[in-house]
Amino acid sequence: MKNTFGTSVSVTLFGESHGEMIGAVLDGLAPGITVKEDYIAHRLSLRRPQGDISTARREADPFRIVSGVLNGKTTGTPLCILIPNADTRSGDYEQMQSLARPGHADLAAQYKYHGFHDHRGGGHFSGRITAALVAAGAIAQSALEQKGIEIGTHIKKCARTEDADFSDLRAEIRILNEKSFAVLSARAEEQMINAVKAAAEQKDSVGGILETAVIGFPAGVGEPWFDTLEGVLSHALFSIPAVKGVEFGAGFGFADMNGSKANDPIEYKNNEIITVTNHNGGINGGISNGMPLLFRCAVKPTPSIAMPQKTVDLNSGKNAEIEITGRHDPAVVHRARAVADAVTALVLCDQLALRFGTDWLKGEA
Amino acid sequence: MKNTFGTSVSVTLFGESHGEMIGAVLDGLAPGITVKEDYIAHRLSLRRPQGDISTARREADPFRIVSGVLNGKTTGTPLCILIPNADTRSGDYEQMQSLARPGHADLAAQYKYHGFHDHRGGGHFSGRITAALVAAGAIAQSALEQKGIEIGTHIKKCARTEDADFSDLRAEIRILNEKSFAVLSARAEEQMINAVKAAAEQKDSVGGILETAVIGFPAGVGEPWFDTLEGVLSHALFSIPAVKGVEFGAGFGFADMNGSKANDPIEYKNNEIITVTNHNGGINGGISNGMPLLFRCAVKPTPSIAMPQKTVDLNSGKNAEIEITGRHDPAVVHRARAVADAVTALVLCDQLALRFGTDWLKGEA
Amino acid sequence: MKNTFGTSVSVTLFGESHGEMIGAVLDGLAPGITVKEDYIAHRLSLRRPQGDISTARREADPFRIVSGVLNGKTTGTPLCILIPNADTRSGDYEQMQSLARPGHADLAAQYKYHGFHDHRGGGHFSGRITAALVAAGAIAQSALEQKGIEIGTHIKKCARTEDADFSDLRAEIRILNEKSFAVLSARAEEQMINAVKAAAEQKDSVGGILETAVIGFPAGVGEPWFDTLEGVLSHALFSIPAVKGVEFGAGFGFADMNGSKANDPIEYKNNEIITVTNHNGGINGGISNGMPLLFRCAVKPTPSIAMPQKTVDLNSGKNAEIEITGRHDPAVVHRARAVADAVTALVLCDQLALRFGTDWLKGEA
Amino acid sequence: MKNTFGTSVSVTLFGESHGEMIGAVLDGLAPGITVKEDYIAHRLSLRRPQGDISTARREADPFRIVSGVLNGKTTGTPLCILIPNADTRSGDYEQMQSLARPGHADLAAQYKYHGFHDHRGGGHFSGRITAALVAAGAIAQSALEQKGIEIGTHIKKCARTEDADFSDLRAEIRILNEKSFAVLSARAEEQMINAVKAAAEQKDSVGGILETAVIGFPAGVGEPWFDTLEGVLSHALFSIPAVKGVEFGAGFGFADMNGSKANDPIEYKNNEIITVTNHNGGINGGISNGMPLLFRCAVKPTPSIAMPQKTVDLNSGKNAEIEITGRHDPAVVHRARAVADAVTALVLCDQLALRFGTDWLKGEA
Repeated sequence: MKNTFGTSVSVTLFGESHGEMIGAVLDGLAPGITVKEDYIAHRLSLRRPQGDISTARREADPFRIVSGVLNGKTTGTPLCILIPNADTRSGDYEQMQSLARPGHADLAAQYKYHGFHDHRGGGHFSGRITAALVAAGAIAQSALEQKGIEIGTHIKKCARTEDADFSDLRAEIRILNEKSFAVLSARAEEQMINAVKAAAEQKDSVGGILETAVIGFPAGVGEPWFDTLEGVLSHALFSIPAVKGVEFGAGFGFADMNGSKANDPIEYKNNEIITVTNHNGGINGGISNGMPLLFRCAVKPTPSIAMPQKTVDLNSGKNAEIEITGRHDPAVVHRARAVADAVTALVLCDQLALRFGTDWLKGEA
Repeated sequence: MKNTFGTSVSVTLFGESHGEMIGAVLDGLAPGITVKEDYIAHRLSLRRPQGDISTARREADPFRIVSGVLNGKTTGTPLCILIPNADTRSGDYEQMQSLARPGHADLAAQYKYHGFHDHRGGGHFSGRITAALVAAGAIAQSALEQKGIEIGTHIKKCARTEDADFSDLRAEIRILNEKSFAVLSARAEEQMINAVKAAAEQKDSVGGILETAVIGFPAGVGEPWFDTLEGVLSHALFSIPAVKGVEFGAGFGFADMNGSKANDPIEYKNNEIITVTNHNGGINGGISNGMPLLFRCAVKPTPSIAMPQKTVDLNSGKNAEIEITGRHDPAVVHRARAVADAVTALVLCDQLALRFGTDWLKGEA
Repeated sequence: MKNTFGTSVSVTLFGESHGEMIGAVLDGLAPGITVKEDYIAHRLSLRRPQGDISTARREADPFRIVSGVLNGKTTGTPLCILIPNADTRSGDYEQMQSLARPGHADLAAQYKYHGFHDHRGGGHFSGRITAALVAAGAIAQSALEQKGIEIGTHIKKCARTEDADFSDLRAEIRILNEKSFAVLSARAEEQMINAVKAAAEQKDSVGGILETAVIGFPAGVGEPWFDTLEGVLSHALFSIPAVKGVEFGAGFGFADMNGSKANDPIEYKNNEIITVTNHNGGINGGISNGMPLLFRCAVKPTPSIAMPQKTVDLNSGKNAEIEITGRHDPAVVHRARAVADAVTALVLCDQLALRFGTDWLKGEA
Repeated sequence: MKNTFGTSVSVTLFGESHGEMIGAVLDGLAPGITVKEDYIAHRLSLRRPQGDISTARREADPFRIVSGVLNGKTTGTPLCILIPNADTRSGDYEQMQSLARPGHADLAAQYKYHGFHDHRGGGHFSGRITAALVAAGAIAQSALEQKGIEIGTHIKKCARTEDADFSDLRAEIRILNEKSFAVLSARAEEQMINAVKAAAEQKDSVGGILETAVIGFPAGVGEPWFDTLEGVLSHALFSIPAVKGVEFGAGFGFADMNGSKANDPIEYKNNEIITVTNHNGGINGGISNGMPLLFRCAVKPTPSIAMPQKTVDLNSGKNAEIEITGRHDPAVVHRARAVADAVTALVLCDQLALRFGTDWLKGEA
């Protein structure tokens, strides 16, 4: 299954950057969940290009839900969301169709699709497709929120600048979900934005790290082998364009720890079993332990940069140089956060439905 | 699907650490592949406890293939490998059955299995199960090798000591696959082993990082959305007990790079299209680009440590202290490398069969 | 996975009878296949209500392909087809929303969706959704035809009248695919149509049997256990609304045969291995044997009939009587044949891609 | 996925008729279900050759459960059952290895496995493998029975003789499950057995029809598209060797009904909503409606018959004649009934877990 993810709750993506429209089919979500169009619009706005640190391509993302909702609530049957493409300038792409863009999928796609794929603007590989994912994810987030499960992502690192650590998850998640540039520290925010602008001026781009937290997620979800919660989440998270690493809890930092530090002591507190630290990111043996889920995604610098780069011409079979024109983001990490939230929500809805049944997320009449 | 992974080529795991036997069913692998029992034994030996830096539990892993092989070759129907458990000392575990071991799956498992699961030695969560995975993976490795696809893993980091980088992949992969402690630099090896010993003496444990390379893997394999090569590999790699992070190419290092550095320049060289650098780890847009696959797994310190730890008694509902007895590894990173190779081989066989058909890996009559 | 079927080539359905539009996402089909819009329109016309033996609801089915096609050929990425709903008269359905229609899904749906589902015109259960399936299937049929694989279905039985048996598959398949009422015998056709009209006059409906043949399908496709070709085909065929039985080759007729008759003798003929008879419908041990695939679907009478029926009111909890108004077919078997062809084509494309790889169906540049 | 079936609860099969052992891995079944070894043995006895109407090959089927059970209850982790093969006489098969047996998988298998598969006794295609399926199914049946869900199958037809219809499901299911030849009418039983014996004397074989009923199955399980309850059940049922047709409720009989007869009137009775008739076999729109599930499987005559048959020699490429020696059943329908029960139980456990969560079938501590 290629463009479909999930078992009990699934999402199917379609569309290309410069086609007529993109869309998503969200299937298997419980009936009776209130679909809030303004919330979907809000989530889409968090993914949209922002201010002067993003591509100049601007779209209002006027989505339409064409199935699966009746009287403002999910029916339980497939929900299809369509988002028309507008403001496309395919002309920007035609000249370089045969030049494989370094860091992009062009070369790999040539081997897979034999040249039949849509090259314009990245086609089906484009980050544009994530708008549909964010819209579908917003509905999944609504489903989770009615059960007290909240997701938030901040830019842990951008252009070598680090944000503060999470300290008060519940409050910070809510603040982050209102911010267009999701950083906890105001000083880090300023530095990051300046660094992104500086890179843009140099016709270059920068990478970063996203950190996602989930509170209220029940214990006992996930599997010991193969469908570990880490495995299933990472599988989906690596679909976010530019994500090249996923780590849970202390992640790669575990390599520098001893077990006596890495192990999270367990204690009864206020009639609950908790762990004193959360180096394991809320997951042990592939299964949620009741603590907040915590994970990070590494986001590589936008591959589309304006400075000249060495490449080959796939038609002529000769070495060439490419200067990528068109409108591009000098960084995507700040936009990808909305996608990380969406992907997380979709995966968790699926895991909850598999564990507790398809009615567990059901809304009230 | 829980204990089964893969679509066209799949593996199913069963067994518990202190049960009668563990095993794996390898299904969908092409017919006609030579099954080399000594190679399987060799791969199992790389996973076994080693010298004085491993658990004192020693097993020769006398596996038996009970189906799917005729006249020394795969039949194309399910191949079942059984490995009896021996040298189990369940008594070590009984006293602490109700004490949740910090860093282990005990607490999470309680929520999922309601106390019915086998607690002894980690039960189905035990690293012991990886022996079956390594045996199945060895057959997948044989299938890949006849097509010129080779996999090797070194301990990139252990107990804060870093190994050298890969420099000559083909030669180094072959060397690593003969070494019981898979390190490229002799000096790093000595330091790592000393650090592991020192941790053991302090009743503590250490973590590390594994780096895996694959050469000869064809371009054009993987999908842009969801079944990205990164996503599918990470999904399976997170099943390796203690793995808490997976990164491809520069991975989290991308956060400190600019696009001008991160993008791999493309060029024609010796009638082939290559990339000059390989920061993307052989994968763009979720699809292989023909360069070596390169990824790293973060391995947390063994959670079983002998020093006293705070925990709760799941029966009495009271805070408690646990001192884990039994035989344990002060590090697992050096043993997990054989598992990383096995998981990689199984995933790649599946991806190749999906892309090129179930006969692509077929052996000759 | 609910509304998605297939592994390498898959189709996802969405929409409701009286919603804004219905649609299908066809994913995983090889790149380079010519998409013939007039052929899709032709296939849709075969599914549309016909003459005076069908519902008076008429729709031109003006489909739109919004992704996955470039320059008239498949790109290899998801192809989404949208079909707007028009000529809906939801008012017909409102009065009886709480009365469960006998033979329909209303009662079962109530238990599953708790009343949140769209009741109008059958909602997502409606035969209307099969228009999207037929459109997607038409593209799959084009892909198969370029490889010499042809599918045809005739009405083997309708309203107790039997059609002639297939005698010259290749010629008859082509004739059937041009006929709006797919019967081989002209006399049977006349009798069937008269019987359907008579049933309609009595406010009643009739059932039938469809028989599908596939020529040119390669040997060696399918699996011995679980993913038998019969199992996978039947899985999908039972999605066709009203299908309640599927049989291959002699099917239920095997119960009255001896082995000496049932076994198909094998012989070399014209440099090919064939079977002299084809009682096994081209499949042995779950795997195609190179002979034509042959199977039948039992289609129950349309449950929507105008005569009064006993039922319950799901709101009041009282016994009630229902008279179904609205526009309905006195038979669906003649329309379902286009759906049977479509489902067959989609399943076979998936099976071929799994067996021979995703490029096997690829078109030429 | 080939030899694995099921999503939340799955079964994986392995082994060959003349190999060392066969087995099944049952995964995902809830924890705490009592595993009754004598019940498994009883179910295996119902599948075993019986009296003088079966193959002379006799095996006690001394199964061993090697994982997934602790203190007599399921742990929730994979349960592996092994059944050694004994009393194999491979010599019977060697001489005819290159002669494709008519009605068998030999020819189809040659195209798929290129001659590498195990030919002896049908190898992995053998009905022998169903012993492992029956053993796994017995555990699924125990899980269902604790929830009041009971399954029973009778031989509806054998060698042209019909059994009586079900009249009192609950009582008859219990009687059938104690009978080795599962027929309701004593007279039909005598006729069937005589007819099977007569066929055996003529070196021939006979077919039949199995009818399965399930009581106590909850309403609201199944999906409208693709994963219809009919589709999922038939997918698995077609794996039973020799099954060539599956029909639900009136099935192919619907073709001779009018809607006024086919529709099941709905009424409130004793505080329950029931249907007065059950022509739909307990399923509407792919979803259970609370009435008993009812379906039939067509079973073809055993293809192994002793009389000479025309075939080809796959090695020499010449027409040939085959006389199948070895020990074979003149009918399999009476043995297949235990397999039908097992497959049904496994599929229903999976469907229930998907619908109501993985704890729904959980046993009590």
